[in-house]
Amino acid sequence: MSTRIAILIFDGLTALDAIGPYEVLSRLPEAEVTFIGKQAGVKRTDTGALGVQADLALSELPNPEVVLVPGGKGNRPLMGDADVLDWLRGAHDASTWTTSVCTGALVLGAAGTLDGKRATTHWAYLDALRELGAEPVPERVVEDGKILTAAGVSAGIDMALTLASRIAGDKVAQAIQLGIEYDPKPPFDAGSPAKAPAELVDLIRSSES
Amino acid sequence: MSTRIAILIFDGLTALDAIGPYEVLSRLPEAEVTFIGKQAGVKRTDTGALGVQADLALSELPNPEVVLVPGGKGNRPLMGDADVLDWLRGAHDASTWTTSVCTGALVLGAAGTLDGKRATTHWAYLDALRELGAEPVPERVVEDGKILTAAGVSAGIDMALTLASRIAGDKVAQAIQLGIEYDPKPPFDAGSPAKAPAELVDLIRSSES
Repeated sequence: MSTRIAILIFDGLTALDAIGPYEVLSRLPEAEVTFIGKQAGVKRTDTGALGVQADLALSELPNPEVVLVPGGKGNRPLMGDADVLDWLRGAHDASTWTTSVCTGALVLGAAGTLDGKRATTHWAYLDALRELGAEPVPERVVEDGKILTAAGVSAGIDMALTLASRIAGDKVAQAIQLGIEYDPKPPFDAGSPAKAPAELVDLIRSSES
Repeated sequence: MSTRIAILIFDGLTALDAIGPYEVLSRLPEAEVTFIGKQAGVKRTDTGALGVQADLALSELPNPEVVLVPGGKGNRPLMGDADVLDWLRGAHDASTWTTSVCTGALVLGAAGTLDGKRATTHWAYLDALRELGAEPVPERVVEDGKILTAAGVSAGIDMALTLASRIAGDKVAQAIQLGIEYDPKPPFDAGSPAKAPAELVDLIRSSES
């Protein structure tokens, strides 16, 4: 039987939050990734420059084994959307893994699934995560029971490789890493607030608030 | 005036090849990223699990400043498609930057734009790149004049950060890197054929051929 993996998308999504993990998880043997939305249809990303299709509505996929909630400013309305939160609670009750990337953790928090759990999010939102009942941890990937959360945007790739190893073993995860040639060599070392120039940290923090 | 960035998509695309660079380049000040296809409309990725929308047809955007061709098995038909190759040659003549990710370089090669140029592609396709007239270089990002090519799939993120620094300076590229929290920490060190177990290299090489 295949592992059903549901990635929840919405207008205002940050595309890489969803597509990084998709690229890893869709290469798992016996896995089936489905993009779902409150309603099916094309969702525009946070920049407006890209349309990504939700093939199913939430109601059509109530019990995936893996749930993934990506970030992006468009997910804030979901934090007060009873239909979405009810679906998330039900899906989390039945899931093998419940996961998020970036501010997707805020939606998991709003659904109550992070109460007292160690979790992470984009570095600029760790305080917001605490207000939702989680114990924020400034690490790239945080695992607490069946909940796996990733830090900002690109961290979803690392989270998904971790998840791939949990689902199918280290060899399969390594084969996927080799297939997507994930041997990162950023031209700069400015990817975290501890490493970037302080002025850029202030700039990003103010643009994210 | 904004920098017009065109990402060419097609059925059978590897999504992360396109979305990694999109996530970086769409954050450039004054840049406008557009997903284009031979025809406009939704393209399904190589796994079949995702639909991504081309907003414009090639003919509607003849002279972008930046051209990006991603990889995926679905791009092989483009290598013999006169309409696509004509568009690519014209776009390359006028471009500021012509770029590819993964096997997107094969399409640039088929268009004749890599003749005698240093270029890279997914590690399993370096020989194929030579047959198309390029000088293959097994590096993650290769720059030759206005041509920037990236190695497999995830290398597009590194390429795009390099391109962002060329277009808008190092500070802007670093701010983007911090915004997408690109401080990679893969759980394994198996992302290149030099590092992965030999059996996995054989496995991926045979699945890619």
